[in-house]
Amino acid sequence: MATVVIFGAGVMGTATAFPLTDNGHRVRLVGTHLDEEIIASVKTRGYHPTLRRPLPDGVTAYRYTELAEALQGADFLVSGVNSYGVRWAAETLASALTEALPIIAITKGLDSTADGDIVALTTVYEETLVSAGGPHCDVSGVGGPCIAGELAGRRQSCVVFASPTREQAEWFAGHFRTSYYHIWTTADLLGLEIAAALKNAYTLPVAIASGFLEREHGPDEANAQMHNLEAAVFGQGVSEIRYLLQVCGQPVQFAASLPGAGDYYVTCAGGRNMRFGRLLGSGKSMAQALQEMQGITIESLSIIAAMAAALPRLADRGAIDRARLPLLGHLIATVDSGRAEPFPLDRFFPDLC
Amino acid sequence: MATVVIFGAGVMGTATAFPLTDNGHRVRLVGTHLDEEIIASVKTRGYHPTLRRPLPDGVTAYRYTELAEALQGADFLVSGVNSYGVRWAAETLASALTEALPIIAITKGLDSTADGDIVALTTVYEETLVSAGGPHCDVSGVGGPCIAGELAGRRQSCVVFASPTREQAEWFAGHFRTSYYHIWTTADLLGLEIAAALKNAYTLPVAIASGFLEREHGPDEANAQMHNLEAAVFGQGVSEIRYLLQVCGQPVQFAASLPGAGDYYVTCAGGRNMRFGRLLGSGKSMAQALQEMQGITIESLSIIAAMAAALPRLADRGAIDRARLPLLGHLIATVDSGRAEPFPLDRFFPDLC
Repeated sequence: MATVVIFGAGVMGTATAFPLTDNGHRVRLVGTHLDEEIIASVKTRGYHPTLRRPLPDGVTAYRYTELAEALQGADFLVSGVNSYGVRWAAETLASALTEALPIIAITKGLDSTADGDIVALTTVYEETLVSAGGPHCDVSGVGGPCIAGELAGRRQSCVVFASPTREQAEWFAGHFRTSYYHIWTTADLLGLEIAAALKNAYTLPVAIASGFLEREHGPDEANAQMHNLEAAVFGQGVSEIRYLLQVCGQPVQFAASLPGAGDYYVTCAGGRNMRFGRLLGSGKSMAQALQEMQGITIESLSIIAAMAAALPRLADRGAIDRARLPLLGHLIATVDSGRAEPFPLDRFFPDLC
Repeated sequence: MATVVIFGAGVMGTATAFPLTDNGHRVRLVGTHLDEEIIASVKTRGYHPTLRRPLPDGVTAYRYTELAEALQGADFLVSGVNSYGVRWAAETLASALTEALPIIAITKGLDSTADGDIVALTTVYEETLVSAGGPHCDVSGVGGPCIAGELAGRRQSCVVFASPTREQAEWFAGHFRTSYYHIWTTADLLGLEIAAALKNAYTLPVAIASGFLEREHGPDEANAQMHNLEAAVFGQGVSEIRYLLQVCGQPVQFAASLPGAGDYYVTCAGGRNMRFGRLLGSGKSMAQALQEMQGITIESLSIIAAMAAALPRLADRGAIDRARLPLLGHLIATVDSGRAEPFPLDRFFPDLC
């Protein structure tokens, strides 16, 4: 049985403790400095307050000051920090890790190089670890539709693990697979991260479309909603994920499968991205919407920012045709202006023409 | 300005009267024998009871006995009957039509030949018209996410028209396009119909997954739902639509765009298919669920039946690999046994392996 450190005690990282302990592994849950209340609660009464559940018996909680102790004898690490915390986490691990440890990150994110090349946040993680003086560790990723509370509730969930090699992804998967946690594996790490990150970004305009209903004073006298527009945006979103996979030389079938359409679907079912987008659609400015979200992290914004940096560079060297990305262009303009304008629908679906 | 006959006064057919009359066309709305109450209401007070709206001024209502009169001088016909009514509609038109008339059918459906070849219901429509002694009429189709009540409410809606030629699809589109009804065109009629029909079939298992929540006694103490499973089924559904498009030599990008993922998304937002599937998922038998639906047509069942007839023949001649269609196979078995069993999740996503 393995000893697993989960670094970051947010809901998604912590939820992976359920299949891990169900498989008999020991889990050390290490909070960051932002998780002090959570760790205190787990230490005193075994209860995770944001996951709203008692944690399984095999889980031991550690404060961030106890990271080095938690890492002793660990077989691998699950990184549970969000995209804004990746650099901090890598730097912190760099000083705590005495030798290489396999890492699997639940963070979904993208970054771009000076040339505009799109890189997975797992790559940024690896590079930051090394540049901060730490050992070289392979960082694997997770994609697919998985709401943390459902995984922790042992609901049927299907996900994809991606590692630099298929064998490594299978090695990780072997620790996590249960009767309710179904895992596919791939070596197309960048493709998986593109799908996983972009579905977050593309959820925002679906939410904006939904929010437009409020601007139209809600359902009309015959109860007409805004589902047709939401669905058109969803279709264009899947189509742009497919195009970006193609441009990056990754498997386009991810778009029409679990990591693309499947994950996108569940993200549109609710969550902070949807709440934020609906506020924008209803007519609030970006600043007002962020204020109403009371400082909750909106991960889609960091992904949109990464794409805003990458697109002009990719277009300049002829690597992409921006006419194939009208929704992403509109989304970048929305974040830029701070206001949700009507969608450029007549530029959608160039793939159908 | 054109004179347009809408044949079948259900919600979807009738909703097309809104963009048509907004463009100044005259609309003759002809009910079938099932639409007598609707037509009486439109004739006496201009109100469509199931669409729950007054119809625009340019619409005149006709009973089915007045079909021949309505057809006089018509420029084209919108067929608004559902998939179960297509043969009846074609036979009825065969005796009423004195010359060929362009037809565009809002019906989504598939059939199969003795060889197992999948054919669009628009083809069945054309053939039935001729075999019943009528003129040869090209029958075009419509796909994409479009809830009738939203189109009638002039909400932004994006759809695809398919005709034997792109020019013909554009000719139709020119009559319907408005500031709120956005239309793409294609000559890949079979591909569009495959996407449009199969998304109906594949909505059923998403609904079944949702219904499983009830079998598990609803959300648990931490409010875990069944969204992860629904999303996995959705992802597999899109993937199987893609595979069937490929097998039929149609554009696979339809799956990851408006006609596939987009239309599938809106169908999962509600409607009779979802209500029926949730009943099955909650543990009711097919017979009980049908009874609770009180005779409302479940179009997905006719599509599943068509695929159940086609698949063994296609497999026998090596045209398909049934391992690529685990969800469709499960769906056929579900209809066959009359009971929703757990999904064969570990056979899902062969495209990821």
